[in-house]
Amino acid sequence: MSGSDSQEEKQKAFGWAVRDSSGIFSPFHFTRRANGENDITMKILYCGICHSDLHMAKNEVGISLYPMVPGHEIVGVVTKVGNKVKKFKVGDKTAVGCMVGSCGSCNSCQDDLENYCPKSINTYTFFEREGTKNYGGYSNILVVDEHFAVRFPDNLSPEGGAPLLCAGIAVYSPMKYFGLSEPGKHLGVVGLGGLGHVAVKFAKAFGMKVTVISTSLSKKEEALEQLGADSFLVSRDPEQMQAAVGTMDGILDTVSVPHALQPLIDLLKCNGKLIMLGAPDLEKPVELSVLPLLLGRKLIAGSVTGGMKETQEMIDFAGKHNITAAVEVISMNYVNIAMERLAKGDVRYRFVIDIANTLTT
Amino acid sequence: MSGSDSQEEKQKAFGWAVRDSSGIFSPFHFTRRANGENDITMKILYCGICHSDLHMAKNEVGISLYPMVPGHEIVGVVTKVGNKVKKFKVGDKTAVGCMVGSCGSCNSCQDDLENYCPKSINTYTFFEREGTKNYGGYSNILVVDEHFAVRFPDNLSPEGGAPLLCAGIAVYSPMKYFGLSEPGKHLGVVGLGGLGHVAVKFAKAFGMKVTVISTSLSKKEEALEQLGADSFLVSRDPEQMQAAVGTMDGILDTVSVPHALQPLIDLLKCNGKLIMLGAPDLEKPVELSVLPLLLGRKLIAGSVTGGMKETQEMIDFAGKHNITAAVEVISMNYVNIAMERLAKGDVRYRFVIDIANTLTT
Repeated sequence: MSGSDSQEEKQKAFGWAVRDSSGIFSPFHFTRRANGENDITMKILYCGICHSDLHMAKNEVGISLYPMVPGHEIVGVVTKVGNKVKKFKVGDKTAVGCMVGSCGSCNSCQDDLENYCPKSINTYTFFEREGTKNYGGYSNILVVDEHFAVRFPDNLSPEGGAPLLCAGIAVYSPMKYFGLSEPGKHLGVVGLGGLGHVAVKFAKAFGMKVTVISTSLSKKEEALEQLGADSFLVSRDPEQMQAAVGTMDGILDTVSVPHALQPLIDLLKCNGKLIMLGAPDLEKPVELSVLPLLLGRKLIAGSVTGGMKETQEMIDFAGKHNITAAVEVISMNYVNIAMERLAKGDVRYRFVIDIANTLTT
Repeated sequence: MSGSDSQEEKQKAFGWAVRDSSGIFSPFHFTRRANGENDITMKILYCGICHSDLHMAKNEVGISLYPMVPGHEIVGVVTKVGNKVKKFKVGDKTAVGCMVGSCGSCNSCQDDLENYCPKSINTYTFFEREGTKNYGGYSNILVVDEHFAVRFPDNLSPEGGAPLLCAGIAVYSPMKYFGLSEPGKHLGVVGLGGLGHVAVKFAKAFGMKVTVISTSLSKKEEALEQLGADSFLVSRDPEQMQAAVGTMDGILDTVSVPHALQPLIDLLKCNGKLIMLGAPDLEKPVELSVLPLLLGRKLIAGSVTGGMKETQEMIDFAGKHNITAAVEVISMNYVNIAMERLAKGDVRYRFVIDIANTLTT
């Protein structure tokens, strides 16, 4: 029933988990917390597979806790609401992204930037405040403080919209913050993967000129014809790169593998901004020439996801402009194959698990 | 006479020049252009010695043209005005900084950012549009398009104000552009030299909290007691640096010799900004870890001087708040010794040449 916070019993849940750094998924029974007074419980419809899920499943960052149920691109339907819940009623569409908690009192939280709260709680892997372990969206239900759930537009495809909870806000937030969402401005997008292809769609909806920057021509047709990019630049072609020097107001760099930043900085106009969304320097620092920054008042910055207020704004904007990720919908028992394909980059552009129809106990 | 543009004769001028990369100065007679219709001619009162003058005199950048008369921190009195001149009349105080020309039509020029115009003309060393060579402010007179001269506040000390035309605008412009001029914000200033000490004064006038970051304790007393900084941080003291992690909204880095940037980035709060005003990477690129930028939405940027509109705003602000550089006034014939002392960092904080009283033919 809606409006009740009397569910003192933990709630039975079911999903697929990895048990160790092999990264192999298998069915997993667990419990979620009782639905608290500020919580909603949702029936999960779809959950996207973020590239970071693969890293975490295999403990490549070294902080994974097993058993692990990944998934932070979650769309579902509200099935319970606590008695202090204001945003939702039972039956509403809702969505959850990368985090499910934060301290609520630090400067970042006060500024609606819970994503930069030092105590923000990831949707899976880390421990919740009350000491229970967090399991993500590769599962049938989720319990979450309503503050960390957004209203999901009824008109938006839930499977296509799911990846926006991670990839969408990851590009939307820096575009807004760094002034790279204004009509007529020229945005470069480095890497046409989960984040990159969504960045192109948002940028076009903002009325920008968009150039996709990629190491090879292989995605040119898709970029121009399917995603609506205005031009395509092969970063390994010195002539093309030279011709584009000083033409871009900003660049979103979505590539996490090591690559040179200087050629990208050269593409920027005066006052241009290179925004890093991946960390190509996990193994060793990148090299940077400072002088070109000085001579054109350019900047290089980083950004990670966005706050809850902005996530709601992003998904509302996506609803208004019908922006979805390009997805390949899979069944739950395909996840191990999907992870193998993801490791090879063999997906355009996001796998999304059809939880509601394929996760069976 | 004022209001006349009929001076078709080139104007005799006199200054001190270096003749080769020895960097030794000696008296030098030359001519300046006739006063054109948009030009003013000024009698130079004072000219500051920028550290770059030393580099250029010795051809350390490799682009110096000899004979060279350096000087781009120039304060004087208007003696002639062309008939289209609007800002000045004979007898007005005026000042000229790092540039004396730009294309006037590019985006940067249209945005009052002549300093980023690809065709901007430096006050000395480079060729003017008409093919004559530019000589700087270590001389008795200067002819300049009024657009590149600012009105100098009557209440401001001309000798103390001269360095603001370079050092002042170099710090004021990025503080304004990057939102580091708001009361209550915490600014770090790396390096307490010509730029750094002026940055502290502007920041205090803006109502900011200011921490000077220096390699040694030697300037602590000056920073706190004479310049009004709120605190002093020894960058070589790991405990002090650790205690200051995450406390600053922005940092102006005025140091041109190679140094690590990561410890500075660590001092920044979320959304913090590290602004490079020197280029520590002329010999080799600096190393940068991108991940800390992502996790705190931090940025690293560069800035070089400012446009003419902002230079006027800066000097007006300095007049209003009586901000001057701390200077050691010298006579023209002391310049060779001054350069030796400057090379050793033996000046607090700027040499300024008393041109009007000591430059004798």
